[in-house]
Amino acid sequence: MARLDELARVGAIEGGGVCRLALTDADKAGRDLVVSWMTELGLAITTDRIGNVIGVRPGAQPGPPVMIGSHIDTVATGGRYDGNLGVLAGLEVVRVLDEHDVATTHAIAVGFFTNEEGARFAPDMMGSAVHQGALALDDCLAAVDRDGLRVGDELERIGYAGDTECGDVRARAFVELHIEQGPVLERDGIAIGAVDSVQGISWTELSVEGVSNHAGTTPMSMRHDAGWVAAEMTTFVRDLANELGGSQVATVGVIDLGPNLINVVANRARMTIDLRNTDDDILREAERRTFAYADEIAEAEGVSLSRRTLARFAPVTFCAEVVDMVEAVATEQGHSVTRMPSGAGHDAQMFAPNCPAGMIFVPSRGGISHNVNEHTDPDQIEAGANVLLEVVLRLATEAN
Amino acid sequence: MARLDELARVGAIEGGGVCRLALTDADKAGRDLVVSWMTELGLAITTDRIGNVIGVRPGAQPGPPVMIGSHIDTVATGGRYDGNLGVLAGLEVVRVLDEHDVATTHAIAVGFFTNEEGARFAPDMMGSAVHQGALALDDCLAAVDRDGLRVGDELERIGYAGDTECGDVRARAFVELHIEQGPVLERDGIAIGAVDSVQGISWTELSVEGVSNHAGTTPMSMRHDAGWVAAEMTTFVRDLANELGGSQVATVGVIDLGPNLINVVANRARMTIDLRNTDDDILREAERRTFAYADEIAEAEGVSLSRRTLARFAPVTFCAEVVDMVEAVATEQGHSVTRMPSGAGHDAQMFAPNCPAGMIFVPSRGGISHNVNEHTDPDQIEAGANVLLEVVLRLATEAN
Repeated sequence: MARLDELARVGAIEGGGVCRLALTDADKAGRDLVVSWMTELGLAITTDRIGNVIGVRPGAQPGPPVMIGSHIDTVATGGRYDGNLGVLAGLEVVRVLDEHDVATTHAIAVGFFTNEEGARFAPDMMGSAVHQGALALDDCLAAVDRDGLRVGDELERIGYAGDTECGDVRARAFVELHIEQGPVLERDGIAIGAVDSVQGISWTELSVEGVSNHAGTTPMSMRHDAGWVAAEMTTFVRDLANELGGSQVATVGVIDLGPNLINVVANRARMTIDLRNTDDDILREAERRTFAYADEIAEAEGVSLSRRTLARFAPVTFCAEVVDMVEAVATEQGHSVTRMPSGAGHDAQMFAPNCPAGMIFVPSRGGISHNVNEHTDPDQIEAGANVLLEVVLRLATEAN
Repeated sequence: MARLDELARVGAIEGGGVCRLALTDADKAGRDLVVSWMTELGLAITTDRIGNVIGVRPGAQPGPPVMIGSHIDTVATGGRYDGNLGVLAGLEVVRVLDEHDVATTHAIAVGFFTNEEGARFAPDMMGSAVHQGALALDDCLAAVDRDGLRVGDELERIGYAGDTECGDVRARAFVELHIEQGPVLERDGIAIGAVDSVQGISWTELSVEGVSNHAGTTPMSMRHDAGWVAAEMTTFVRDLANELGGSQVATVGVIDLGPNLINVVANRARMTIDLRNTDDDILREAERRTFAYADEIAEAEGVSLSRRTLARFAPVTFCAEVVDMVEAVATEQGHSVTRMPSGAGHDAQMFAPNCPAGMIFVPSRGGISHNVNEHTDPDQIEAGANVLLEVVLRLATEAN
C-alpha cells in the first residue's frame, strides 16, 4: 500500500488520480521509482528494446521464471490501481518470500510492460504483444503519437530503450493481479475473480447516407432518415445482447448526425458498435445479425450504408490449471471467489497462447476505472495479493 | 418568370440558389428591386416600422385591400421560389388586371414581410406577426443577430425603417401563393394544393444524464446508458407518428452524446423532438405520450431526464370559404387539386385569426426547399399564379 501511494504521487492529478501516459517524463519517473524498488529487492533487471522492464529472483533450477506482470502507464485521467497493482503486488510477493527466506524451484520475475493503455500510442498492450511475438518490434518502435513523436525516439529520450531482445526473458507461466474495472464483484459481494477468459472485441463503424428533408413538410412514409437508422441500430444491439445473454455486451458509444438540426431530417449518421463476447462463435453470430439487420433497415428506409471494421480481437481463454489454482487458493484462504471473464484487455492475454497464464481480479468500487475515482479497499488488495503469492509459489515449486 | 430570374440574381450563390438573409445588404438590394417594380405598376407604397412594404392598387370602394403577400428574405442557402414566388405572383396579378383594365370593387395590395425565415433574427414570421399584433414591435426591433446587431438598427441602416404604424394597412382578406416545400403534390401528380391549415409545432429538448461506464466490463443489466435512452426515444416517436397517422409527423434531428467514445457507455445525451399535427388535441396527445414514455424509460434505465420546450405553436386553420374558393377555381381552370395542410410556417397564418385567409401551394421538385436545388416548373408556377389571380379577383369583387 505504501508503494501504491508513492507511485501514485508520480504524475498525480487533481482528485486523487494519475496521469502517466506511456514514455512521458512522468512515465520515466514512475519507471525509475519501480526500478529502484526492484534494485532494493536484489532482482536481476533487464530492459528490452520495447522498454519492458523485468526483474528476476533466481530459483534453485535454471530456466525461465514464473512471471508476475502488468503495466505502470496510465490513461490521461487514470486511477492509481489499474496496472500498478499487478506490478507492485509482484514486488510484494518477492519481498515476502525474501523475508521468510523461501527458495523456489523456479525463478520468479516481476515485469512491467510498455504502453498497455494505448492512450498515447496505438495499439494498446504494445510491450507485452512484442514480448510474446504478436506484434513486430520495428512497427511498434515506429508508432507515433498525435504530435508525431515516435515510440523508438521517446524510449531513447527517457532512457528505456534497452539492449535485451524482446522475449529473451521467457515466462514459464504468467500471472496478473488486476482490479476488475467493472461492477460485478462488488455487486455480488465476492472478493476474488478467477479470470477464465478475455472477451473478444468487435468494433464497427456504420456510416449512413440518407436525404435531408423538412421535418414539417415530409410525410413519415417519404423519409430517408439516417438518424432513425442509427437509433434503430442502437436499440437493436441492446436487445440482441440481452437475448444472447451470457458475457455478450453491446454498446453504441458514438452517434454523430448531420446536419444535426432540430427541424431537418438527418441525411448523415456515423455511429460505432462495440460487441464483446468470450465465445467467438457467439460474437460472430452477434456480428452477423447486427450487420444483416443494418442492411435490412437501410434498404427499407432507402438509405445507403457503409461499414468499417475498426478493431477485431478474438476472445482469449486462460489456462484451465491456472484458473483452477486461483479458485482453489482463494477458497483455501477463506475468500469468496467466482470464475469470470475480463471485459477489458490485459497484458496477461498476450502470454496466454504461449504459456500457462491466468489473472486474479479484485473488486473496483462502483465498477469505476480510467477515472480519478478508481478505488479498491486495502483489505481487498491484500486478499488479491495473498492469492497471487500462493499461486506464484505453487507455480514456482512445481516439478516440471 | 423574368422577375423571379432577376430577383434571384440578387444575392445569388453557387448552384443556382440565393442568400438574402433579412436586413443584409443583399436583402436591401432585393427590396429596392421589388419596390422599383411596385413603383412601375403605380402602386401606393408604404413601409411600416418593422420594414414590411405594401403596395396598394385602389378599388372602386374605399376600405382595406385584399392582400397578396409573402416574403423575399431567404435562408443562407436558399432557393429562388420560397417566398419570392408569392410576392412576384402578386405583382403579376396587378399587371394582368392593369393590362386588361380590370377595376375591382375592393383595393388589392401586394406586400412583403420582414424576416419570415428567422434565419438571422428570431423569431421567424416577424414582420407579419407584428403587422397582425401577434408580436410587440419594440421586442422585435430589439432582437439581435449572432453578432449582436439589432433589427431596429439594421432597418435604419438599409433604409427600411418606415414611418407607417404596423397594421395601418389592414387586409380585408389575405392570400399567399407558395411552393409546397414538401414532396406530396409531386408524388401524387397534383398541380394545386388548397392549403386548409398549418401544422401546430411542438419542439422539445431532452437532456439525459446517465453514468459513463466501460463498454467491456459493464454488464447490460447494470448500465445507465444515456445514448440508449436517446435512441429509444427516437424510434418511439417514429412509431408514434405512424400510429397516430394523418398529418402527424415526428422528427429527431439532433442527437449529441457525451463522451461520444466507442468504448464508453454514454453518460450524457441531448436530443430534440419535433412533433407536428394540424389537430391540436392529437398534438397534445403525442406530446403527452412522448413525455410519459421518456419518463418511464429514464426511470427504468436509472438515468435522470430533463425536458425543455423550445417552441410551441398551435395549429392554424384557414378560412373555409377561401379554401373552398381555391379548390373550386383550380378545378374550374382544369387543374388537379387537393386540400392539404402546410407543414411549414408562412406569413398567411398570422392573418388567419383576423381576416379570411388562405394559401395556394404548387409542387416542389423532390420536396426540396431551403436548398439551392429548390425548383418548380414554369407551367406549375403559371397554374398557381392563375389560381391566385382568379381567387383575388373574386375576393376583390365580393359585395361585402
